[in-house]
Amino acid sequence: MQHDEKNILGLHLPTDPRWVDLAQISLEDILTDHAYCEQKAATSCISLIQRYPHKKELVNELSPIVTEEWGHFRLVLQELQKRNLQLGKQRKDEYVNKLLQFEIKGGNEEDRLLDKLLICALIEARSCERFKRLSEGLNDDYLKSFYRRFMESEAGHYATFIELAENYVDKEKVRKRWNEWLAYEAEIIQQLKPRGDRMH
Amino acid sequence: MQHDEKNILGLHLPTDPRWVDLAQISLEDILTDHAYCEQKAATSCISLIQRYPHKKELVNELSPIVTEEWGHFRLVLQELQKRNLQLGKQRKDEYVNKLLQFEIKGGNEEDRLLDKLLICALIEARSCERFKRLSEGLNDDYLKSFYRRFMESEAGHYATFIELAENYVDKEKVRKRWNEWLAYEAEIIQQLKPRGDRMH
Repeated sequence: MQHDEKNILGLHLPTDPRWVDLAQISLEDILTDHAYCEQKAATSCISLIQRYPHKKELVNELSPIVTEEWGHFRLVLQELQKRNLQLGKQRKDEYVNKLLQFEIKGGNEEDRLLDKLLICALIEARSCERFKRLSEGLNDDYLKSFYRRFMESEAGHYATFIELAENYVDKEKVRKRWNEWLAYEAEIIQQLKPRGDRMH
Repeated sequence: MQHDEKNILGLHLPTDPRWVDLAQISLEDILTDHAYCEQKAATSCISLIQRYPHKKELVNELSPIVTEEWGHFRLVLQELQKRNLQLGKQRKDEYVNKLLQFEIKGGNEEDRLLDKLLICALIEARSCERFKRLSEGLNDDYLKSFYRRFMESEAGHYATFIELAENYVDKEKVRKRWNEWLAYEAEIIQQLKPRGDRMH
């Protein structure tokens, strides 16, 4: 584990370096999985808007993110089709399913909102880190710069989710819960074997 | 029932003329309901893409419609906020729920796909007709032209769904089932009392 690798958006554990090599040899799978990640990012924001229509900042910040994530889905689809590859079926997302197990189910409204925003922030942060790996480690120059742009965009979304959390919840509480999430996420990353057919 | 009213995109029954007057006096409700209609239009297309990722024409035709419908959601949101109105909670959609009761549940893959596409076509057609009513009957000139643009867009989407159906299913079968749907939809419209707080 290199020192500089440790700090991408606060993540505790860097991605196993073998992952990019695995992704390289299963490009169809990784592009399909990536397309569905963008789709899920869009529908998660739609669900948040549906759940909290009275929270104006949340609605106003997340509405343009839906447009952006869906635009990403279309870009990834284009890459698949340029290569005569098909958008396959959506696969089970073990990483996200494990994250959701840590989400507060009861609790008060504020705690539940906080967790929902932090899960989104965390997925954006890890996606950003994975895109960085792809932008550095793939063989194809075009795809390297393709993934560099995604990396920048996800970093922006990560920041938006954290800011929204701090807008609705006391900053100290956000920091404390964010650290718990980071620690939990590192455990998941350690448990999951790196798979070249999954973004996470 | 005026003769020219009967033929908007083949619908059998025009909207009760009192509906626009009711909508006029509950603008917050109608805008909120409209916003969620656009949102549901976007998520329905996402679901179709998820269900039929191997159908290239469907994926390619519906992907830009998601962008467009979500853009509509954002425009309606803007209208609410300009008027200091809130995006309220999503309401029960009796019209769509009744439509879904007519959808083939078993049957073969082709029949199910056909019904899914025709339901979308039908909702677009009825929305188009409602937007026409609003564009003609509201008091506010700005909103009249606002709804005129939506009307044109929904007419385009209606055509896309019918074309997709004809792309995957024998045209004669499409025509026959479409007529069954039109007859069923007219029954629903006759049953439902016009409500100024609902788009349908």
